[in-house]
Amino acid sequence: MKKSALQKARAAYQPKLPIVLTGAVKVVEGRPTESVADQEAIRKLFPNTYGLPEIRFEKNPTPGAGKPVNVGVILSGGQAPGGHNVISGLFDGIKKIHRDSRLFGFLMGPGGLVDHKYIELTAPIIDEYRNTGGFDIIGSGRTKLEKKEQFDKGLEILRELGITAVVIIGGDDSNTNAAVLAEYYKAINAGVQVIGCPKTIDGDLKNDLIETSFGFDTATKVYSEVIGNIQRDCNSAKKYWHFIKLMGRSASHIALECALQTQPNVCIISEEVEEKNMSLNDIVNYIAGIVTARAAEGNNFGTVLIPEGLIEFIPEFKRLISALNELLGAHKDEVAKMNTEELTAFILNNLDKQNIEALNSLPESVARQLMLDRDPHGNVQVSLIETEKLLSELVGQALAKSDAFKAANGKFSSLHHFFGYEGRCADPSNFDADYCYSLGYNAAALINGGVTGYMSSIRNLVNPAVQWIAGGIPITMMMNMERRNAEDKPVIQKALVRLDGKPFQKFAAKRDEWALNTCYIYPGPIQYFGAADVCDQPSMTLKYEHTNK
Amino acid sequence: MKKSALQKARAAYQPKLPIVLTGAVKVVEGRPTESVADQEAIRKLFPNTYGLPEIRFEKNPTPGAGKPVNVGVILSGGQAPGGHNVISGLFDGIKKIHRDSRLFGFLMGPGGLVDHKYIELTAPIIDEYRNTGGFDIIGSGRTKLEKKEQFDKGLEILRELGITAVVIIGGDDSNTNAAVLAEYYKAINAGVQVIGCPKTIDGDLKNDLIETSFGFDTATKVYSEVIGNIQRDCNSAKKYWHFIKLMGRSASHIALECALQTQPNVCIISEEVEEKNMSLNDIVNYIAGIVTARAAEGNNFGTVLIPEGLIEFIPEFKRLISALNELLGAHKDEVAKMNTEELTAFILNNLDKQNIEALNSLPESVARQLMLDRDPHGNVQVSLIETEKLLSELVGQALAKSDAFKAANGKFSSLHHFFGYEGRCADPSNFDADYCYSLGYNAAALINGGVTGYMSSIRNLVNPAVQWIAGGIPITMMMNMERRNAEDKPVIQKALVRLDGKPFQKFAAKRDEWALNTCYIYPGPIQYFGAADVCDQPSMTLKYEHTNK
Repeated sequence: MKKSALQKARAAYQPKLPIVLTGAVKVVEGRPTESVADQEAIRKLFPNTYGLPEIRFEKNPTPGAGKPVNVGVILSGGQAPGGHNVISGLFDGIKKIHRDSRLFGFLMGPGGLVDHKYIELTAPIIDEYRNTGGFDIIGSGRTKLEKKEQFDKGLEILRELGITAVVIIGGDDSNTNAAVLAEYYKAINAGVQVIGCPKTIDGDLKNDLIETSFGFDTATKVYSEVIGNIQRDCNSAKKYWHFIKLMGRSASHIALECALQTQPNVCIISEEVEEKNMSLNDIVNYIAGIVTARAAEGNNFGTVLIPEGLIEFIPEFKRLISALNELLGAHKDEVAKMNTEELTAFILNNLDKQNIEALNSLPESVARQLMLDRDPHGNVQVSLIETEKLLSELVGQALAKSDAFKAANGKFSSLHHFFGYEGRCADPSNFDADYCYSLGYNAAALINGGVTGYMSSIRNLVNPAVQWIAGGIPITMMMNMERRNAEDKPVIQKALVRLDGKPFQKFAAKRDEWALNTCYIYPGPIQYFGAADVCDQPSMTLKYEHTNK
Repeated sequence: MKKSALQKARAAYQPKLPIVLTGAVKVVEGRPTESVADQEAIRKLFPNTYGLPEIRFEKNPTPGAGKPVNVGVILSGGQAPGGHNVISGLFDGIKKIHRDSRLFGFLMGPGGLVDHKYIELTAPIIDEYRNTGGFDIIGSGRTKLEKKEQFDKGLEILRELGITAVVIIGGDDSNTNAAVLAEYYKAINAGVQVIGCPKTIDGDLKNDLIETSFGFDTATKVYSEVIGNIQRDCNSAKKYWHFIKLMGRSASHIALECALQTQPNVCIISEEVEEKNMSLNDIVNYIAGIVTARAAEGNNFGTVLIPEGLIEFIPEFKRLISALNELLGAHKDEVAKMNTEELTAFILNNLDKQNIEALNSLPESVARQLMLDRDPHGNVQVSLIETEKLLSELVGQALAKSDAFKAANGKFSSLHHFFGYEGRCADPSNFDADYCYSLGYNAAALINGGVTGYMSSIRNLVNPAVQWIAGGIPITMMMNMERRNAEDKPVIQKALVRLDGKPFQKFAAKRDEWALNTCYIYPGPIQYFGAADVCDQPSMTLKYEHTNK
């Protein structure tokens, strides 16, 4: 692999660890846990792994001799910066326990476990990938581990390789699967521990003990870099409105974090749209109002941040999408055989009047997308809907009819951007490099502690890494029951943007000023070498959530 | 202005200067120059500024006392990283000549001169903008300085402010206008010098003495950062073909530089398409062939770089666009009064059969774009044509009919990106920060040298800044006659990618290997602090063009 100068320089970076993990540790158990909701249902589904205590590591002055352990690792779902550091931390962690420990990586996601595709991750391989972005060391995939046959098939290869612990690095769905797998292996006494690691750039896998998912920090910094660059362009040419869609399907943490970092003129937060029951028309009028107010000051330019999943949070479309998911989920087999026209007719015949109206209010291309394009889980592919163009088109139409805009002698030209893939595999920031390495190293300690069904937890993250707190939490405590494809399923509850949370409150207090004035901040690219205030700052979301500032 | 941590840290950066500019200089004249083509026509149009000698600065051991000078500065055309440093270099340069020198910035481009809109750029303002991206210090604009009335109107405000020199920071068109303005002010003995500075991220304003235009280095590094991130994503998920369009309308220097930095599977170079007379179909088949070859190895993923201006270089469309430009240019006034249907009918009635066929071969949306959307100069707005989607759609159609692709059990899913605005206002790399500061400082020396119609020239750029050579070249030497809006005009000849040049040769020698194998390089974000091999490297285009490597 030919490497860039930066890659070579970054290879030498030694990620920081919490001080407790720099020596031998002992497990300190906290209180037993409960799931966040639907306790009875979850307890019933996880009889062997429900209600386990939180775990915190403390220094162990009298450690016994470690035993070698064979561990398997899986990268699951969308890429997030820092995955390679979770793996290198895990590798170093199990080698610290015993030099004869071995690490196996299953290839292209959970499917690698089921299909017995793997490589052994040796020191020379690990060293090639330290502090780099991407999941290419073993690849990633979206196969869902849900079925007994998959678990049994996986167990064959685990036994063959003498693997007694599997670490699954993934988002909420993947960690849900990790919990199910842990429960199953415990129930059949397979002798295999399962540990999860909280990954997702979306930032929606978190709670009091999982302060943030990894990758969020780096991805939002990359997006903020390019948003800042666009804002500087916008403020130089003074002639375009830039509509910028940002990844983050279910939660608007990414858009909110980027807004806090760059201070755009408009940022839509999906959770607020839902909470306030805003229609598409309300959103369009809100944006058009700001465009008009700026035009009155002679400023015919600006920036609008839009969360990828917005359309699902607009009540009329949420209702429509949910009806579509329910309808098509319930008729999965018939639907699979239909051609486009048959499917369209089937949908139109089975939706109620209100949903048909919502569908008809959209441009045809968007309506088609909602009806016809679905992901392998049967869900609408929200990321393909060009919400940024939809909104700018509707805003343009509203302005064309606006007397106030005419009176202001306003002009409205728009440009569109979508940022997602640009940030998922960036080289991890120092924060993510340290956090991920610690998560992996900590996962080794959890394995050594003999637990299963736990997620690696590193917290106190707004403080320097040495002060970070290491431990684990039972995955079941993050779960509730949700409707998926017309079935009730146990899943990890997504952490959405809280309107009473400090990040949103900070934004809400400032947004009117940012709307009318031009208060852009230009964060610039991630820096790896230099002063701590430039290189080592965690996300503003994390800072606002965990400090009193 | 609230500043990011990086902005604050960058404010302290002291750009490097060529050693010769660190003290007093004297002008050393070289040989008289000729324009690159159409010498007779250019000489006739520029009787007072044609044939001037190249200039090189040398140290002046016996300088006289400097006199204060009032200078005006204009940012013209699209933004490029480093514009603020040209201005701060110019400011420091004229202050070095005499502390009572003053700098005035005309607002929002050349229009500010004509409309008498300006601010005085004082030290506190300049200090706010050192080493930052953007043109927001005074804004930029695209007003063309072409007419006597504009020049005379401008002269009023120049006289009022006692300005005896104007520095125009712009691309080829803006420097053409600078030459025309210089000629006019010289002809009427206005006592105003005009100096140009070579700006454009496109990299197509260069020759032996102007080794690169500023901004190219930074912009291509930003694009390469995000391309690298996408490639890492692509190589982790292994399921998408990413079609990435890059700014650069007339020349493919940006795409070529990014290809050299990131080693994608495919990069189309417009100049090669034109040279080899490749049809749209040829390009589609070329890409489809590589997709198929990779599919045969089980690699259903990859990256394709596409220069923004590609369509203008495909002979059938070049002919069509040129016919459209000629037709609509010749009937400017009638056309302005037509509605969409009238215009469409007018066009279809006036194109020949071959052009109608070319038009019909395109998806309707692209055909409409070509016919109806034109920029203020009357040209097709190539940047709005979604060539990346056009190509992926046609490639998909070709693959659907391909037996080889079927035999390879290939899959083809594509994603699309367009990068342009993301890089034009990035904080300048150390290279651009130094180069731009030197260009501005050097412009002050040219003013002090009493010349007009010159472009600031800093060369020997692959060597450390202290060894850079400072001087000036007559703008007329870069000119030839070209057809614009149905008229022959003197313009600076664009420097296109040379197929016999080393950057293209290096690419051509490697591209087959990059196509089939996965040889991605991940450059990562621009670094400002740290080792020189990470922070201070010029572009690969510059290195290949000016070293023997």
